[in-house]
Amino acid sequence: MTSAVPKSVIWSGGTLRLLDQTRLPHEEFYLVCDNHDAVRRAICNLSVRGAPAIGIAAAYGMILGLGDLVGDELIKVLARRANDLISARPTAVNLAWAVNRMMSVARRLQNEDLGTTLIALEREAIAIHREDAAACRAIGEHGLELVRQSPRLLTHCNAGALAVSELGTALAPVYRAHAEGVPVHVFVDETRPLLQGARLTAYELQRAGVDMTLITDNMAAHVMSRGKVDAVIVGADRVAANGDVANKIGTLNLAILCKHFSLPFYVACPWSTIDLLTSSGEAIVIEERDGNEVMEVQGQAISPTGIRVYNPAFDVTPASLVTAFVTERGIISPPFDVNFAVLSE
Amino acid sequence: MTSAVPKSVIWSGGTLRLLDQTRLPHEEFYLVCDNHDAVRRAICNLSVRGAPAIGIAAAYGMILGLGDLVGDELIKVLARRANDLISARPTAVNLAWAVNRMMSVARRLQNEDLGTTLIALEREAIAIHREDAAACRAIGEHGLELVRQSPRLLTHCNAGALAVSELGTALAPVYRAHAEGVPVHVFVDETRPLLQGARLTAYELQRAGVDMTLITDNMAAHVMSRGKVDAVIVGADRVAANGDVANKIGTLNLAILCKHFSLPFYVACPWSTIDLLTSSGEAIVIEERDGNEVMEVQGQAISPTGIRVYNPAFDVTPASLVTAFVTERGIISPPFDVNFAVLSE
Repeated sequence: MTSAVPKSVIWSGGTLRLLDQTRLPHEEFYLVCDNHDAVRRAICNLSVRGAPAIGIAAAYGMILGLGDLVGDELIKVLARRANDLISARPTAVNLAWAVNRMMSVARRLQNEDLGTTLIALEREAIAIHREDAAACRAIGEHGLELVRQSPRLLTHCNAGALAVSELGTALAPVYRAHAEGVPVHVFVDETRPLLQGARLTAYELQRAGVDMTLITDNMAAHVMSRGKVDAVIVGADRVAANGDVANKIGTLNLAILCKHFSLPFYVACPWSTIDLLTSSGEAIVIEERDGNEVMEVQGQAISPTGIRVYNPAFDVTPASLVTAFVTERGIISPPFDVNFAVLSE
Repeated sequence: MTSAVPKSVIWSGGTLRLLDQTRLPHEEFYLVCDNHDAVRRAICNLSVRGAPAIGIAAAYGMILGLGDLVGDELIKVLARRANDLISARPTAVNLAWAVNRMMSVARRLQNEDLGTTLIALEREAIAIHREDAAACRAIGEHGLELVRQSPRLLTHCNAGALAVSELGTALAPVYRAHAEGVPVHVFVDETRPLLQGARLTAYELQRAGVDMTLITDNMAAHVMSRGKVDAVIVGADRVAANGDVANKIGTLNLAILCKHFSLPFYVACPWSTIDLLTSSGEAIVIEERDGNEVMEVQGQAISPTGIRVYNPAFDVTPASLVTAFVTERGIISPPFDVNFAVLSE
């Protein structure tokens, strides 16, 4: 099934390999990262992207090349790395969550010898990676019934295998349903400005043999108006305690269309994306990226020069527009604040 | 003001020049058309686009190189040309409307000598051209008050000077307000797949010195949610007798967002775009264009090859989502069927 899709993050023999997603679908190329700064750069320039995948990459980034250190510097070095990595991108909570897990291990073992600490840190990074894979499989299981009920889906950006360890978040139920023989069809929003839908989601669905149709983002209302879509399913970069969802720019658009056309709007994400310390979407920092991303496509100018551009990378969908969350802890319906609190216990 | 924007259609000394809009904003190049087939090709490949502009171009296309004909063939030749030109693009009504006006003149003068008929045909094409310019100026006047009330606008595609004879439809009130010193600001949807917003609207607003911000189509909901937009104003390719509007793909999307955020949604168009013979949007043929337009940007591949693509060039916005039409006959509020009928008398 998704074994046809290359892994976004590979940890093997103490070496981190990141599939350079900026080169897809034209080229499958792995960046070899041997220090945390290379990981930071890969996160900043979106070579690795997707909230869970950047968390996993950052966890490994914390431990690269630590073997040469003198013991008493370790905590300081890790604290600096943690800052560097977390500041690479502000919106996805998984990045800080994974780095903070690594820091907790380091602090707990502060008085141990370096060798013991390094082994524990590597185990923690691998655990974060494996737990994500398990979460994706569970999201696939929990979401299977939703896809059976609504097999004609529309998705935005890439919340597939490439955004995580394997399978995906929004696409995990799609892959699971496809494996079960459900006649699933996915409309894929191309997702400007960086075209993660056209470049990544189309690529991985094609490789996995899932029936799909690529559209531009502004066609979603039209395909819904013609009765071609049963539901929308997307991933998330950060979910606030009240259920507000920060996700790729254009997600709010789809949620409003779903309300208008009375279609379910599902958000699939691992529990680690739910940030109970952020009360609502208003408190989520929205990353604004370089205007050249809008004024260019793959390096080619598409507009006049010298104009003003706005390039928010994410938007916030209010909880009131979300039908349900699909997580490894199950499907979560409103009221989200109450149900998140119950599941977090 | 818009004297800074090159004319889309120039008729001079029996020669038709069409600004090749596929090359904008990178190059200002005029195609010289000396036969109707060159005009047809320019319409098909969008070198000339915008409902009024293709009507004007087609009117001139009817008369190019007719001087060499023997008299009794004229009607047959024109009827063939009319078919060729009308079939170039199905959705915009102005194309058939302008060509049919030319045919009416030809039929009325069927028994006159060739010279008289040719002079009358050229006069009719020039009249169509001039009436469009007058309509644009009147749309600008009628829409001025709307822009005063809602100076922070969002527009889609290009319904500016380049789409018509001069000034524009949706942009005519913008230019008028700008000239009056109203602090107008326009969010410009880039308008995938062919980027008429990024390439054409950004270009002409920049040239005219109107304050603007380029965004990708999927950012509209976000900028509205942040209170940055007072109203949406767009053009139209065909308006049905009940007020349903066919316009560039993505227009329906914006109309639904306006409803959600309680913003006015205005459609500006000349009266010739209102097709009282088409009862509702259901009867409007939506042109589907080549999938490569979605899979490529300016000739560069952005997706895997061999995937399925959907590329409707237009969508239909139901009349219930339209706040008002701005035409040269005035601002038209609901009920549109009744008010269209009154104004058509």
